[in-house]
Amino acid sequence: MTSILKTLTVPVMLLDEHKCRRNISRMADRARQHNVRLRPHFKTHQSRQIAQWFREAGISCITVSSLKMAEYFAADGWDDITVAFPVNTLEHDRINRLAERIRLNLLVAGTEGALLLSQKLKFPAGIWIKIDVGSRRTGVLPDDRGTIDEILRTVEASEKMSFMGFLTHAGQSYNCRSRDEILGVHKESVALLARLAADYRSAYPLLEISTGDTPTCSVAEDFGNIDEIRPGNFVFFDLMQSVIGSCSKHDIAVAVACPVVAKHSDRNEIIIYGGAIHFAKDSLVTGDGKVVYGELVQVSGNSWGEPLEGCWLSKLSQEHGTLKVTDQVFRQISVGDMVAILPVHSCMTANLLAGYTTMSGEELDYFDIRKDYLEV
Amino acid sequence: MTSILKTLTVPVMLLDEHKCRRNISRMADRARQHNVRLRPHFKTHQSRQIAQWFREAGISCITVSSLKMAEYFAADGWDDITVAFPVNTLEHDRINRLAERIRLNLLVAGTEGALLLSQKLKFPAGIWIKIDVGSRRTGVLPDDRGTIDEILRTVEASEKMSFMGFLTHAGQSYNCRSRDEILGVHKESVALLARLAADYRSAYPLLEISTGDTPTCSVAEDFGNIDEIRPGNFVFFDLMQSVIGSCSKHDIAVAVACPVVAKHSDRNEIIIYGGAIHFAKDSLVTGDGKVVYGELVQVSGNSWGEPLEGCWLSKLSQEHGTLKVTDQVFRQISVGDMVAILPVHSCMTANLLAGYTTMSGEELDYFDIRKDYLEV
Repeated sequence: MTSILKTLTVPVMLLDEHKCRRNISRMADRARQHNVRLRPHFKTHQSRQIAQWFREAGISCITVSSLKMAEYFAADGWDDITVAFPVNTLEHDRINRLAERIRLNLLVAGTEGALLLSQKLKFPAGIWIKIDVGSRRTGVLPDDRGTIDEILRTVEASEKMSFMGFLTHAGQSYNCRSRDEILGVHKESVALLARLAADYRSAYPLLEISTGDTPTCSVAEDFGNIDEIRPGNFVFFDLMQSVIGSCSKHDIAVAVACPVVAKHSDRNEIIIYGGAIHFAKDSLVTGDGKVVYGELVQVSGNSWGEPLEGCWLSKLSQEHGTLKVTDQVFRQISVGDMVAILPVHSCMTANLLAGYTTMSGEELDYFDIRKDYLEV
Repeated sequence: MTSILKTLTVPVMLLDEHKCRRNISRMADRARQHNVRLRPHFKTHQSRQIAQWFREAGISCITVSSLKMAEYFAADGWDDITVAFPVNTLEHDRINRLAERIRLNLLVAGTEGALLLSQKLKFPAGIWIKIDVGSRRTGVLPDDRGTIDEILRTVEASEKMSFMGFLTHAGQSYNCRSRDEILGVHKESVALLARLAADYRSAYPLLEISTGDTPTCSVAEDFGNIDEIRPGNFVFFDLMQSVIGSCSKHDIAVAVACPVVAKHSDRNEIIIYGGAIHFAKDSLVTGDGKVVYGELVQVSGNSWGEPLEGCWLSKLSQEHGTLKVTDQVFRQISVGDMVAILPVHSCMTANLLAGYTTMSGEELDYFDIRKDYLEV
């Protein structure tokens, strides 16, 4: 069998379909087991073919991060979509186009957004109130009942808006470095949400709780009163998730294939065609202070092995990447070879490479921000 | 006059055509004044319309960073292109397609690349030897005459390859933080190149020296024996270049327009639709330890003013950006507004936003990695 690497000439995102489908089915199983709805975040893969693998795993409702991305998936038959980003009311035409066709759920993170949306919305949409459970990025603080009540009054007054419940993203879990730390974040946010839901349950018996970061969804064994989870990154995982404690490196389903263009024997460095416009600049810092932009793996058969000890992507500029390698690996790799590298942050890397090549050579689509997917 | 911001609904790259054309003509004037050829690097703007502004300023030869980008500009009539990246010989089909049609110059950064290229090249191409004058990214060290001589023997033995000269990129200038530091880097690299050229001039009387980072090209007043300069970023500049000392903030010709989606009065933070997938994650750290991903400016008329004191992009996640602002600015900005932000690294930001809107509302193209621009 010819290695997939032999067929490539430029940087591409390699996708191990087996690992990816396994990640999907594991999360789907977890959701079933814990009796929560899985509404996966598709911003990580942004691919209609990978979306199809989710359909095959029984998934029928999804999360996206922009209205345009919602259009991409709506055009492919997805008809129950949550845009998990504080609603951008400037895009009211797109909102209405979607709300007319599919079951669209939107987020409000404050009174102004709710009010503007109520003035523009022409078709029914579900409204989630974004609650800040500790990441301090955005959302209403759980104790800010004045704001929550004001948003609810706006929703009540609107004929088109229906209150769905409270939605969170415990983004602080990304600072965790172990399973126990993740579980600590999870427990705290579940408790906050339980109190909040209890206070509003009598007025809104159908209200739901939706939560959604990959670390807590990957490791939690008790989802309390959570109704829905929206993890995204788990579809591929990456080095960052392995450091956080969400996965093992063996679960990482993507690697970046890059041509080798130069070698520097004075410092055991291999220069690849693969830079910040391919990997993005997300990095990890190891215990001994090394900055890591990726780890070298060896492709064999339909997959790749564990990262090679002492071989990491140590520098990135726009198109250049610098691989620091051991003496042995330095001798084994030649100019003109393709190498494969596990990325630090798969969402950002996928966004830049904008397509996938499976290990059997199939090419998969990626959403294109420049295209219109729903006719006006 | 309606502000351009009123016409926008999603994050876009605003381009001040006047500033951009002024940056172009200033660099063209500098090159003429110092009697060096300007072969601007088009990887910063990657736009055929902006390329046309260079044509109007008298530019006829260009630099790009990939063979596909060379195809994009070749398809638009540019016929003298240097690909300033160690040649990726896996793309030999694309190399030959280009070399057949235009005057193509390629870079070799070692003996292996030269040898592989000599085996694949079917049409004439100019060959530059990449010299490392201190950035330690890639290139042959100037004292490594064994490697230089071996590359030259390969070039001599090839019927298609013509030796052009020595090419460098003093990337270490990006660590400078003043005009004097930049001039120090420049002086050192000019001296290294002078010695190198002197040693090979008798065998290659026509050899040239090409150099090309924006900081040194923007401030140097003595180009020594340099024949050609290849700066790129100067077309837009950015906050990083203003900190390095290449430009003033007033010269920055691009700003990112972003919708405001939430406000948090407890911490004077404004949440924008504009994250790492729009800005990239390049940052600056100020003297007092603030991490800055961009600075807020106020759009008025056909341009924008100086950055507003105390207002900066302080955090980025995938789609969210957090603006830290003063009390006064917090009161002035509402959810549903569009704000404009100067980027830290315009090349990376342009690559993500993939298009421009001029202040008069014209939309300009950006190279698309997914397209083929030259028919096979």
